[in-house]
Amino acid sequence: MSIVVRNTPRADKAVVDAFKDYGVATVHEAQGRVGLLASYMRPVYRPAHISGSAVTCEVAPGDNWMIHVAVEQCQPGDILVVTPTSPCEDGYFGDLLAASLMSRGVRGLIMNAGVRDAATLTEMGFPVWSKALFAQGTVKETIANVNTPIVCAGALVHPGDVIVADDDGVVVVPLEKAVEVLAKSKAREEKEAGVRKRLEAGELGLDIYGFRDRLAAKGLKYVDYPAKG
Amino acid sequence: MSIVVRNTPRADKAVVDAFKDYGVATVHEAQGRVGLLASYMRPVYRPAHISGSAVTCEVAPGDNWMIHVAVEQCQPGDILVVTPTSPCEDGYFGDLLAASLMSRGVRGLIMNAGVRDAATLTEMGFPVWSKALFAQGTVKETIANVNTPIVCAGALVHPGDVIVADDDGVVVVPLEKAVEVLAKSKAREEKEAGVRKRLEAGELGLDIYGFRDRLAAKGLKYVDYPAKG
Amino acid sequence: MSIVVRNTPRADKAVVDAFKDYGVATVHEAQGRVGLLASYMRPVYRPAHISGSAVTCEVAPGDNWMIHVAVEQCQPGDILVVTPTSPCEDGYFGDLLAASLMSRGVRGLIMNAGVRDAATLTEMGFPVWSKALFAQGTVKETIANVNTPIVCAGALVHPGDVIVADDDGVVVVPLEKAVEVLAKSKAREEKEAGVRKRLEAGELGLDIYGFRDRLAAKGLKYVDYPAKG
Amino acid sequence: MSIVVRNTPRADKAVVDAFKDYGVATVHEAQGRVGLLASYMRPVYRPAHISGSAVTCEVAPGDNWMIHVAVEQCQPGDILVVTPTSPCEDGYFGDLLAASLMSRGVRGLIMNAGVRDAATLTEMGFPVWSKALFAQGTVKETIANVNTPIVCAGALVHPGDVIVADDDGVVVVPLEKAVEVLAKSKAREEKEAGVRKRLEAGELGLDIYGFRDRLAAKGLKYVDYPAKG
Amino acid sequence: MSIVVRNTPRADKAVVDAFKDYGVATVHEAQGRVGLLASYMRPVYRPAHISGSAVTCEVAPGDNWMIHVAVEQCQPGDILVVTPTSPCEDGYFGDLLAASLMSRGVRGLIMNAGVRDAATLTEMGFPVWSKALFAQGTVKETIANVNTPIVCAGALVHPGDVIVADDDGVVVVPLEKAVEVLAKSKAREEKEAGVRKRLEAGELGLDIYGFRDRLAAKGLKYVDYPAKG
Amino acid sequence: MSIVVRNTPRADKAVVDAFKDYGVATVHEAQGRVGLLASYMRPVYRPAHISGSAVTCEVAPGDNWMIHVAVEQCQPGDILVVTPTSPCEDGYFGDLLAASLMSRGVRGLIMNAGVRDAATLTEMGFPVWSKALFAQGTVKETIANVNTPIVCAGALVHPGDVIVADDDGVVVVPLEKAVEVLAKSKAREEKEAGVRKRLEAGELGLDIYGFRDRLAAKGLKYVDYPAKG
Repeated sequence: MSIVVRNTPRADKAVVDAFKDYGVATVHEAQGRVGLLASYMRPVYRPAHISGSAVTCEVAPGDNWMIHVAVEQCQPGDILVVTPTSPCEDGYFGDLLAASLMSRGVRGLIMNAGVRDAATLTEMGFPVWSKALFAQGTVKETIANVNTPIVCAGALVHPGDVIVADDDGVVVVPLEKAVEVLAKSKAREEKEAGVRKRLEAGELGLDIYGFRDRLAAKGLKYVDYPAKG
Repeated sequence: MSIVVRNTPRADKAVVDAFKDYGVATVHEAQGRVGLLASYMRPVYRPAHISGSAVTCEVAPGDNWMIHVAVEQCQPGDILVVTPTSPCEDGYFGDLLAASLMSRGVRGLIMNAGVRDAATLTEMGFPVWSKALFAQGTVKETIANVNTPIVCAGALVHPGDVIVADDDGVVVVPLEKAVEVLAKSKAREEKEAGVRKRLEAGELGLDIYGFRDRLAAKGLKYVDYPAKG
Repeated sequence: MSIVVRNTPRADKAVVDAFKDYGVATVHEAQGRVGLLASYMRPVYRPAHISGSAVTCEVAPGDNWMIHVAVEQCQPGDILVVTPTSPCEDGYFGDLLAASLMSRGVRGLIMNAGVRDAATLTEMGFPVWSKALFAQGTVKETIANVNTPIVCAGALVHPGDVIVADDDGVVVVPLEKAVEVLAKSKAREEKEAGVRKRLEAGELGLDIYGFRDRLAAKGLKYVDYPAKG
Repeated sequence: MSIVVRNTPRADKAVVDAFKDYGVATVHEAQGRVGLLASYMRPVYRPAHISGSAVTCEVAPGDNWMIHVAVEQCQPGDILVVTPTSPCEDGYFGDLLAASLMSRGVRGLIMNAGVRDAATLTEMGFPVWSKALFAQGTVKETIANVNTPIVCAGALVHPGDVIVADDDGVVVVPLEKAVEVLAKSKAREEKEAGVRKRLEAGELGLDIYGFRDRLAAKGLKYVDYPAKG
Repeated sequence: MSIVVRNTPRADKAVVDAFKDYGVATVHEAQGRVGLLASYMRPVYRPAHISGSAVTCEVAPGDNWMIHVAVEQCQPGDILVVTPTSPCEDGYFGDLLAASLMSRGVRGLIMNAGVRDAATLTEMGFPVWSKALFAQGTVKETIANVNTPIVCAGALVHPGDVIVADDDGVVVVPLEKAVEVLAKSKAREEKEAGVRKRLEAGELGLDIYGFRDRLAAKGLKYVDYPAKG
Repeated sequence: MSIVVRNTPRADKAVVDAFKDYGVATVHEAQGRVGLLASYMRPVYRPAHISGSAVTCEVAPGDNWMIHVAVEQCQPGDILVVTPTSPCEDGYFGDLLAASLMSRGVRGLIMNAGVRDAATLTEMGFPVWSKALFAQGTVKETIANVNTPIVCAGALVHPGDVIVADDDGVVVVPLEKAVEVLAKSKAREEKEAGVRKRLEAGELGLDIYGFRDRLAAKGLKYVDYPAKG
């Protein structure tokens, strides 16, 4: 049996929106180096940077029927996250579905498969992260679940989790940790701003982070060229 | 024995040219979801969109000699389609061959291997779809066929078939179906324009396409959060 | 034991700088079709084109500690070349390390693994070639060698070798051959300029290079359509 | 902070053991076509077929320290399931760790990375499914979690879930569904035994499953050769 | 519209059967180094070696319905050749379909996707070449063509073509060339038997094939160690 | 210019032969976790385990001419190590070349490309490690170097280096380190034998290696189920 879950929770809108100030790398670090989708998830155009609340959607291989079902569950500020039930790179999504999502205020698509109409999506400015660009059409025969937990490109996503996506890829923040991770992201960014100034001024990370003693303790030796291999 | 076939047929020029009004996804759907080259065939720069008549060319792995032979068979409005006789990603093609093809009015290259001089090809505005960007040079030792049917990136291509390529990839339309597929492409585009307006106005695909009853018949259930997994 | 080799040799600055006038494909051909890194090494943004002297750096998988060590060994005009001791696509390098390298006059990074902060690297204009864009963070626990010979993406790189990188990828020129390869690159470029003019004027490579007799000797036959497959 | 969770639940031993009577394909179908690990997870030797209770273990890339920690949490009848925190194919596991697991009655290893000592593992008869066979050694520097939920090769695994693995790959059955899925596996196997007899006797699936009418309704046509393409 | 073509032609049974005396490499060479399927097509068990007449079958991604249709078109001595209409590695085929094909005298399966029940297929001795071993189940919703020409793993296959498969992979011989290629295979095998005896006796290929002069003419030089790199 | 270097050095025969007592993983660890070829280098049949002195050979893509040249440079106890000058998976090597090498006392082949005649190689008992099994034939047109240093599957190999290959892959030991690495391999094996006995008796690696304090110092915590994720 397949189900569509309605009225799923979402994080506070101000929290979700505030994540857009932070890059995927920062959020990933802030929540303890977890939550990344696989590196094959690439944006259709660059630069692109969004945050939003996840609506999750399973699809059968070569079958995009459930995306139409999922669209109805999307609200302004959402990001649609779709994964096939087995690996597939067909073109599940194109300009018409993008028009539909845009009309509902959806901020982007995370598609663990292929998409098409890449040029039009770029013109429309609808941000999409996908596994492939491929024109291959899909059928509408098999149902699956909407708004149940899914594993998408190696990451567990629950409906309502916060998604952040940029040129580096996609990260998922569990709904219940959103406030905490946002605060940590902010703290990290501020700390990095200070370090960056010192680096730009020519200071070395070796000194700023105090690595020299620990490296020596590990046994690192400095020798002059020519060295004995 | 290897052969070069001269005076191969081409579709009517007006037909070939008219295909440029339609994207690869549209043409692929219009001819019944067939004819796509593999998704690894990517444009050197984006956006790019061409249509033309195929001149086909086989090359030995690591050997681009036959491309020079194929150039002579190209006419204005053609697209050169090249595949190695076994998988290879060497840089078979660069700015000099592009200059040669441009001087003959050729519209682009489909290369099921690698190409090089990517920056110069981009500056020249000569559109190329390839499997890889790789500077690796090739030799000129082994002959193969020009203008015989080939399998290129998973698709069967005859000389004179219509090629359409854009940011989504490459599709081949058999010469004898070109008129029919062009008409169907036009019809599809017009139909989609109407659907798009309704989607932009906020109507749902579920309603436009009348999916709700069929989904219910398949057993799709709607439940409210929290759902029992 | 891991070592950092100081005061490694570099080619003459004028020679190193002059390589920037030549593309990777040209340099690769000029030195006899050797020295290319694997085709998966792609620039973070395009176009990009640099030449410089290699500082080499090994890193453990998922551990970027030694990059901080290597930074100190970099001088103006250098290019940092990093490879993990086993395959890895984690994001070893981001905007902070880029800021540090830029402050030292380093011209770019060749990273046989992943990098992150792609959007910021693009804004900063710091050129990077990598295997992946991936936000995955790394630790600082394991030491390795700096400025010893490494195999990076299939190519042997010694400290001080000349690196040339552009949209086609990356090539390494051994330090002791730099002068010779530079001269051959220049000669090749000049020769190609002449050929290009003739090709642009419509002459065929078949005639310019005198291929017709050799092709016939190999058995190539010309036939008219329809040919017997 | 990293944790090791002790005293995790397991399914009833009789249930866990009974799963060994059923192949991965059968169990996967019985639980609704979910729960498979990615197809790249292959057995070190064939045939191999085990069932057991999952002990889960995260490891850093290139670092097998936590496997030693996880061994202590293993009981007779368990299967150790290990995934790196970012993709890695290093050889995390070899004959010594296998000897340790065998001495504790562990039935096998599911390793979403590389293993080594393949010949010895085969001689010992310790079944392992992995992403790669690779001798590359690992360090012991970075901690991670044991017996927390993990995503392993695309599947969510909780400690105590039932793992079934055979020549087709690996499937995970949630602990709370184990009894139900076992019953359904048995029912499916019995049903298939009947179908198999009819197929062996020459009956067609078309007739046994009653497909002919539905195929005709979809528009399938039978024509005699030669057909018009 | 999808069609099933009945009463397709086949090569003479004696010819088809005689191909089993020759390996894939021999047949491939005998017909001019063409006709190989991609190297990812691997046998489920080794050694395996079959020849037979192709029955071709398209399937939708994740949908094995048409295999049931194709079974009915198979005769003793046939080999079923199946390709998805877009890339897929799901487990389309298992022990039940194998039982059905065996009851009809079919000699094996060439599956450009995944199969399952690998252990049982091995016990049954039913030879299968596939892209993957994967338990993932498929649906029965979408129709496609049987016994029309297909491109399977990069090779064009017409119904009735001769298929030869062994541990090296799969080769297709066009029906109309079967007699000629068989004769050439035999001739090649006989010639190689003579060469093999000389090689086993210690003669060098350099001398048997008379390569020394041609190598010298190309510029090959012999030097004594240490050589100047 | 291409060269064949004659009379290259080899390690002492007793040393080379003694390496066969140690697996690839052991030798790799003994020499400091370096020297492995890429994990895609797999044996044609298993189990297989050899040691020998490297004769190195470059080949052009799709061209096996130089293998014939290299055969003449091989002596009893050697292992032929071949790499293409750009990536290729064609079938460069089959039963005839194996017969030739066996007649010269060569112990095996390391082929960074494809090989064919897998069934016959298995019957002959000639061990081969390769990137692919593929019947694709090759030409004899382009020369390259024999017995110069090469990068093969990511590892630097000089003629005369010691090669060890088994079911885990391939490792190269520099000629000048052979005696030292052999001694360290022996020492490691002996040490592991002692650890293995303790593990088989049920002792934990945690205790044998004294990991508990260091893990605690890193912050590892033990908690009882259910844990707070």
